[in-house]
Amino acid sequence: MVFSWFGMRKRRVVAPTLKPRQEKVEREDKVDLKDMSPDVVPFLAQVAYFELAVFESLTRAVTAAPTLAAKEGLSAAAGEVLAKHHGLVAELRKKKVDPAEEMAPFAPAIDKFEELTGGRNWYEMLLGVYLTAGFLDDFFVRLVPSLPKALAGRVEILLETDRSAEVIVALLKEGIEADPTLASRLAVWGRRLVGDTQLVARSALHMSDNRADDEQRIEPVFTDLIAAHSRRMDELGLTA
Amino acid sequence: MVFSWFGMRKRRVVAPTLKPRQEKVEREDKVDLKDMSPDVVPFLAQVAYFELAVFESLTRAVTAAPTLAAKEGLSAAAGEVLAKHHGLVAELRKKKVDPAEEMAPFAPAIDKFEELTGGRNWYEMLLGVYLTAGFLDDFFVRLVPSLPKALAGRVEILLETDRSAEVIVALLKEGIEADPTLASRLAVWGRRLVGDTQLVARSALHMSDNRADDEQRIEPVFTDLIAAHSRRMDELGLTA
Repeated sequence: MVFSWFGMRKRRVVAPTLKPRQEKVEREDKVDLKDMSPDVVPFLAQVAYFELAVFESLTRAVTAAPTLAAKEGLSAAAGEVLAKHHGLVAELRKKKVDPAEEMAPFAPAIDKFEELTGGRNWYEMLLGVYLTAGFLDDFFVRLVPSLPKALAGRVEILLETDRSAEVIVALLKEGIEADPTLASRLAVWGRRLVGDTQLVARSALHMSDNRADDEQRIEPVFTDLIAAHSRRMDELGLTA
Repeated sequence: MVFSWFGMRKRRVVAPTLKPRQEKVEREDKVDLKDMSPDVVPFLAQVAYFELAVFESLTRAVTAAPTLAAKEGLSAAAGEVLAKHHGLVAELRKKKVDPAEEMAPFAPAIDKFEELTGGRNWYEMLLGVYLTAGFLDDFFVRLVPSLPKALAGRVEILLETDRSAEVIVALLKEGIEADPTLASRLAVWGRRLVGDTQLVARSALHMSDNRADDEQRIEPVFTDLIAAHSRRMDELGLTA
């Protein structure tokens, strides 16, 4: 059910396929990048490689964890992200393509991204994974409706079953509570991550010849994604 | 069904609860460390921590993998080992104990062991994981029958569902085929691992006051485990 609190004030703006930004948009309102969406195989491959990279980042956080309880929680989180990766690889196999071959073109940019967002210490590492994976999972979920219907359903389930965020949030909160100076350092780090994360998302989109038009269509989506990013920061008591 | 090709020649030796060593022993013949077995919680905790350590080693191998196909295969292997770990942690939770707390006493020795057996390069890393996890999983499986029956059934299934070995063997064979000098270096490495691996296994056993008697009971078990180790080396074309 689509219900708009802003219905009375709603007006058509420059990009006619887009609804005005709302704080709480319904899923249907979010599907507005359809004809800019990547093809099925590259989409699955990019998301699969991204999840593999997130898994690797989490395993580094497992190795560097200061307590066995943290190691334990993060390894469970890593397992969930790995399951996403394997689910996507399984979808690639169903398409009769070689997953490694299809993922390869996305590896350099994503590896570079993981390096940039890896952080200088364990807490930055955790915040980096949490914020970038949060942002990009959000973004990829918005492209899912452009997939063939049955596949879309499966991929949506794959991308949404993830409790890894809870584990990371709990560990970050613990750290911030124990050392309040951590909050300001993490806030700076969290703000720094947004730019690079947006670039990865944009790289997944098909741009047309009309750049200005593309930007007008993309802008509200990214505004939404950034709002979600700010909520993640807020939840941790960090100023976005 | 227990059937012994050596039935005619079978004779009782020094340790009356032990059957003589056979090349292909049946499961029932292997259960001979019962009263040296650790208590349930420490057993589950040690194996759980060991599987977590194997998972961490495998994730290092994922990160260092030279190809995306290798990364892909090894991440699947890591996922299987992680599932073992989580299955054991779930059993610890059923016992109403804190898994992290129970695993903690085993961490220093196992961490040290993983460091010693980590290898100096990717292939040594792979061989290290394969041989040490093979040896110790074998060993732990032999202690399973001393657990309460229902638990024993579940733990046995947990410890046996693992295709990670196949992936590693395939990668090692590929490497040895591409560079035949690798075989002799890996053979040296494989032989070096046996001593430390045995020490980890022995540390799990309850020793009595009668050291000589203990040794007589342990010896045939370790002879078996070493024979299995040699078969793993042979399969890779390495001289044990």
